[in-house]
Amino acid sequence: MNAPRELGDGQGEPSAPHQPVHAPRPMPAAMLEALMARFGDRCSTAMALREQHGRDESPFDVPPPEAVVFAESNDEVAAVLALANAHRVPVIPYGAGTSLEGHLLAVQGGVSLDLSRMKRILSINAEDLTVTVQAGVTRNQLNAEIRHQGLFFPIDPGADASIGGMSATRASGTNAVRYGTMKENVLGLTVATPGGRLIHTGSRARKSSAGYDLTRLYVGSEGTLGAICEITLRLYPLPEAVSAAVCSFESIDAAVRTTIAIIQMGVPIARCELLDAHAVRAVNRHDKLTLREAPMLLMEFHGSEAGVAEQAATVQEIATEHGGTGFEWATTPEERTRLWTARHHAYLSALQMKPGCRAVTTDTCVPISRLAESINASVEEVEASGLPYFIVGHVGDGNFHMGYLIDPGIPAERETAEGLSARMVARAIALEGTCTGEHGIGLHKQGFLLQEAGEGAIDQMRALKRALDPNDIMNPGKIFL
Amino acid sequence: MNAPRELGDGQGEPSAPHQPVHAPRPMPAAMLEALMARFGDRCSTAMALREQHGRDESPFDVPPPEAVVFAESNDEVAAVLALANAHRVPVIPYGAGTSLEGHLLAVQGGVSLDLSRMKRILSINAEDLTVTVQAGVTRNQLNAEIRHQGLFFPIDPGADASIGGMSATRASGTNAVRYGTMKENVLGLTVATPGGRLIHTGSRARKSSAGYDLTRLYVGSEGTLGAICEITLRLYPLPEAVSAAVCSFESIDAAVRTTIAIIQMGVPIARCELLDAHAVRAVNRHDKLTLREAPMLLMEFHGSEAGVAEQAATVQEIATEHGGTGFEWATTPEERTRLWTARHHAYLSALQMKPGCRAVTTDTCVPISRLAESINASVEEVEASGLPYFIVGHVGDGNFHMGYLIDPGIPAERETAEGLSARMVARAIALEGTCTGEHGIGLHKQGFLLQEAGEGAIDQMRALKRALDPNDIMNPGKIFL
Repeated sequence: MNAPRELGDGQGEPSAPHQPVHAPRPMPAAMLEALMARFGDRCSTAMALREQHGRDESPFDVPPPEAVVFAESNDEVAAVLALANAHRVPVIPYGAGTSLEGHLLAVQGGVSLDLSRMKRILSINAEDLTVTVQAGVTRNQLNAEIRHQGLFFPIDPGADASIGGMSATRASGTNAVRYGTMKENVLGLTVATPGGRLIHTGSRARKSSAGYDLTRLYVGSEGTLGAICEITLRLYPLPEAVSAAVCSFESIDAAVRTTIAIIQMGVPIARCELLDAHAVRAVNRHDKLTLREAPMLLMEFHGSEAGVAEQAATVQEIATEHGGTGFEWATTPEERTRLWTARHHAYLSALQMKPGCRAVTTDTCVPISRLAESINASVEEVEASGLPYFIVGHVGDGNFHMGYLIDPGIPAERETAEGLSARMVARAIALEGTCTGEHGIGLHKQGFLLQEAGEGAIDQMRALKRALDPNDIMNPGKIFL
Repeated sequence: MNAPRELGDGQGEPSAPHQPVHAPRPMPAAMLEALMARFGDRCSTAMALREQHGRDESPFDVPPPEAVVFAESNDEVAAVLALANAHRVPVIPYGAGTSLEGHLLAVQGGVSLDLSRMKRILSINAEDLTVTVQAGVTRNQLNAEIRHQGLFFPIDPGADASIGGMSATRASGTNAVRYGTMKENVLGLTVATPGGRLIHTGSRARKSSAGYDLTRLYVGSEGTLGAICEITLRLYPLPEAVSAAVCSFESIDAAVRTTIAIIQMGVPIARCELLDAHAVRAVNRHDKLTLREAPMLLMEFHGSEAGVAEQAATVQEIATEHGGTGFEWATTPEERTRLWTARHHAYLSALQMKPGCRAVTTDTCVPISRLAESINASVEEVEASGLPYFIVGHVGDGNFHMGYLIDPGIPAERETAEGLSARMVARAIALEGTCTGEHGIGLHKQGFLLQEAGEGAIDQMRALKRALDPNDIMNPGKIFL
């Protein structure tokens, strides 16, 4: 943007995440009775279940929700919301429980509304390349069920997340450089509003100019505006040919410069992932690979046989110009699967490098021309801190994750990691990027969102929240305060 | 969707557009004085200028706005909005004046806020493939200024619309099948809110999960939520090779089946346009071409030399299987330009087939598997009516336009055309499509939006409007009532 950002220019001290305030809004007995009457043993107050629904990968420690309800239909979702709205009790939609930024935590108490049993694939339209699923369907389940029709759904956050949750956090993953994120791939939704009404957004048409884009408003709203019950998605034909390659570089900078050149040449690369030397070492150990322990690009090409060969040749030439070496091909499905499985294991593999550790991970996205600068500065800071770390990045999009390995028994290590993370996020904002490429805001990044968007845009978001959820029952206390 | 649509199932009688009610909210003298004081001769009440700003291609006859103000900066836009908000007077943002559905009409009086002088390109980032422009920059201007850097912006509604207007109507055009619409290509916005505050949405990063997607809420909001001042767009590298082709078919059905097969095969076709025999005849006459006067696909392929050749071979094979004949290549830039210029002239060319006529055009989009059915039924109806017509379609997206040629002196012809259009739109909704693929709702399609979205979704839209524009000053009376 040309104009300076109002409060959003990344100036000033980066805010560290504060411990969220636990301010419960207790559930009246009448509401619990009504839930029990309707849901029977699908409404539970058992502590183990509540605790399982009240934590995620985030560092926060908050008491669990008061009850967990398992919905099995849109009408049941709507009924829970209507009841909660009447009693002004919070509801937190729950899918696969894989979110990372505290999205699921019951900071104001209430009900965890588990949609994981809503896992039917409602209709597949192969001619139109669309599918409609219930919110609890996971991405692996979906792909398993459409593969025999020659179709696939490309969005792949690390975990086997639910499609409802992926929509709610605007997830992406390794294929976004070619296929986009959930934002580009959700065509329509069925949503239960806080008033308990079921509405439909979008259609099965590939595009539309019909009114406000409610679909895109719910995608990424983190359960704060309504509960997503059904999702209509775009699908893609399985490519005729797929080929994967790895290439090592002397520096992260060289790997990033290679990526920029690939994108600028218009090569329709399907995946372009960076692993730093630490991440390569970790996956080598965990998955028994022998990759060179240097900054590496892991790439994939989709297309016709000839097209894939041509893309690969172009990329190899670009990589060589930037000092890339050890270009290796994975042409069989088995080899490819082995590499990508290793990539998806990077987080777990890294944890095993320091026994008993936890990882503080963060997620920023910058314009690709600022990516090397962004990563290099973060590396310099973490090297100075002495904490072990690893980097994986969807670098074709300018998106990367840094994982700081900390000993959970040493509070100073977490503080150091959070401080490093805060500096990295503030830098991303200052470089015209975003505080989160794909993980969302949740509890963890509320201060950063304010820095990024500015008070003016946050006020608009607050006004939208008040308009659609006047009693503030939908996942309250998240995104902004 | 699986569940029946609440009120949005396309049942019942299609609603014909009603003549909009002209319910002016007069401008107090104090406001006009304040505008005159600040803008001098850039604030005008001259009737010719007001009339020019108070009509578009739509059929409606509404008195013009009370004044036209030419803004030259974000601050000026914000100042007009703040003043209008204080006086509760409508403001209608105006770009190139090329909208089709009555978007610009001053149904409640007020000020036409002309942004066409805000035509600076603020920054081009070739490495990141992004550009930030002022709202009045037109698509042709933008492409002329970025071509020498090897870049282009693909979205091409027929007219040389402004980027601000294209954002406000969620425009697309012939390249959407490959490059998406404005929805996919706007990264961020600077918007003046009705309160006169400037806010920024999005960033220059290619993706983000940071809070509500305000960008996508303003894109397609038709000036009813705020005034778009600056837009950050994605750009694309000019393809190494481009090739265009035409192919004739015995029937529209065969052309559409060919398109479906192309999409299903995953061929990354850049443009895939249908012209019916009437449209071909019209462009033949207007542009002195000798195309076979039968249903025709006009296609374009972007990529490497080898990639384009391969795509073209695949497509030729598919077309031949569906009875396509007369496959002809336009390989030189001159030939290509001639064909695409003819395509962009289709509307004007058709008008010249019936001297003195006007065209009632409409715009629907359906899942591609329903496209042939949708077009064939509309053709049957228009043939029975006796009105001359033509069809052009972005068929790769399932989007097509029908133009009915009417004598403006014979009211019965307009009525017939509006009736045909209404049936076509109702059919699109019943076929799980949308009442507008790219033209927007404006005044013309308010009834259809209600049919499509249902009362529940419209209520959400109304709530958003009230939240962001409590005094209803931004282009009031549009999209929904």
